Amino acid sequence: MADAQPSNDPLAIICGGGSFPAAIADAVARRGRRPVMFGIRGWADAAVIERYAHHWIAIGQAGRFFRLARAENCHEVLFIGTVLRPPITQLRLDWQTIKLMPHMMRSYRGGDDKLLSGVARVAEAGGLRVVGAKDVAPEVFVPEGVLGRHAPSERDRADIARALALIGALGPFDVGQAAIVANNNVLAVEAAEGTDNMLVRIADLRRLERVTLAPGIGVLVKAPKSGQDRRFDLPSIGPRTIENVARAGLAGLAVAAGSTMIAEADQAIAAADRAGIFLVGVREESAR
Amino acid sequence: MADAQPSNDPLAIICGGGSFPAAIADAVARRGRRPVMFGIRGWADAAVIERYAHHWIAIGQAGRFFRLARAENCHEVLFIGTVLRPPITQLRLDWQTIKLMPHMMRSYRGGDDKLLSGVARVAEAGGLRVVGAKDVAPEVFVPEGVLGRHAPSERDRADIARALALIGALGPFDVGQAAIVANNNVLAVEAAEGTDNMLVRIADLRRLERVTLAPGIGVLVKAPKSGQDRRFDLPSIGPRTIENVARAGLAGLAVAAGSTMIAEADQAIAAADRAGIFLVGVREESAR
Repeated sequence: MADAQPSNDPLAIICGGGSFPAAIADAVARRGRRPVMFGIRGWADAAVIERYAHHWIAIGQAGRFFRLARAENCHEVLFIGTVLRPPITQLRLDWQTIKLMPHMMRSYRGGDDKLLSGVARVAEAGGLRVVGAKDVAPEVFVPEGVLGRHAPSERDRADIARALALIGALGPFDVGQAAIVANNNVLAVEAAEGTDNMLVRIADLRRLERVTLAPGIGVLVKAPKSGQDRRFDLPSIGPRTIENVARAGLAGLAVAAGSTMIAEADQAIAAADRAGIFLVGVREESAR
Repeated sequence: MADAQPSNDPLAIICGGGSFPAAIADAVARRGRRPVMFGIRGWADAAVIERYAHHWIAIGQAGRFFRLARAENCHEVLFIGTVLRPPITQLRLDWQTIKLMPHMMRSYRGGDDKLLSGVARVAEAGGLRVVGAKDVAPEVFVPEGVLGRHAPSERDRADIARALALIGALGPFDVGQAAIVANNNVLAVEAAEGTDNMLVRIADLRRLERVTLAPGIGVLVKAPKSGQDRRFDLPSIGPRTIENVARAGLAGLAVAAGSTMIAEADQAIAAADRAGIFLVGVREESAR
């Protein structure tokens, strides 16, 4: 958040899956702040969590988390990594969570944004301040400009602008951090399937000649939903994204600079260079 | 078109794939008008085309089509059935088509709507009037109201309204005649993959527990893009759509009444009844 003051209390990091929890914890530790990892069972990777002070928690056990965070002297909490919305019938709720159920239930109706802002209200009700990755680890975000050796063409730039406008138009529906546009045609809009599945779909449609554009045309664009709480669930990319963009036969990918996280940036850029595709951080406002 | 006068000239029907060319030709013939089928090679089904006076044509051979249509005394033409945008390098163009290339090239940039309005300009340049399926066969369109035995719940109605609003918001991008919304969450937005692929994707995401809603929640909604030329490429459903809606675990499907075509309506409704899902024609304006 813009008004955040640097803090040197230990930082509670609630960790889902993927490699971002490690990247964030490393960045926090490099700045001399102590990360305390709270691995979400079933999602977080033990090899990541166990490199720092850590606890394991389950979704629905807010009371346990608050007790542990207090004992660790944490006043701020960050949520990072992949967690899919669990079936509500599978949650095992502790007493404090049950007291917070009105918040939680409201969060279950509506899209991810509402789920996450509900989670933030719960955390704040427990006395913790919720911070975003940008506040503590700005280096995991894609900067503005071309990364790597290849740059978007004029046509690619036009496709990027169209995709950004589309993602913007979807803001009120709490869906769509990504879209694929090729030569001005919208080929795919991301919803529940996620970016990798969307890219595989385009590769399949090309193979089946349902999409008949020549290879090397089209862009993947990722940007936060308009109005999204920037403390949660920001768009992210990594080496696998690059590989799937290449397999989908696109010219490259553009992401919202400063609000899209990149995992293993060096490998991702090297993969883009090898595949002959561009990777560029663009201002979101360029299309709004 | 609203201002269309009934005509008794033979009607040129340019036929792509699927079962709608047969349904339209039958409806035209029932009204005492002579259908002249122009099957698009590689797309149209010979068993359908050959039941009436017919010719085979290839995409890019506008000159040949105009000569044949003139010889058949056709003054109106209708486009119906599935044709995917061919790779431009695979088109074999005749001389009249080449003269019309400026139109055609403009049509290749932009979405399907632009492609099709380009095709209409080409037909009109050749002296034919382009009519829509609604003008000649209104009975192939879904009427307003519940078809079959099952009706949408209040929650389903809310999901339908949200999906219609989403499809409306996508109008400027010439994409998206369909979306899936479940309990207020947008699960899928259709682009190049088509409705059946989108439904299979939701079935897959459920199986993989990437979508964790209970079965029987969620709706498929289909409606024309806002601003779409209603003479072309209207949304359509049939028995297979119903089967895929059931496999995706949705509660039912809602389509824009009067502008969505239904193939084999009796079988489709029977399939919905058997699967316990609803099928309803809704006013598009209800969400605009």
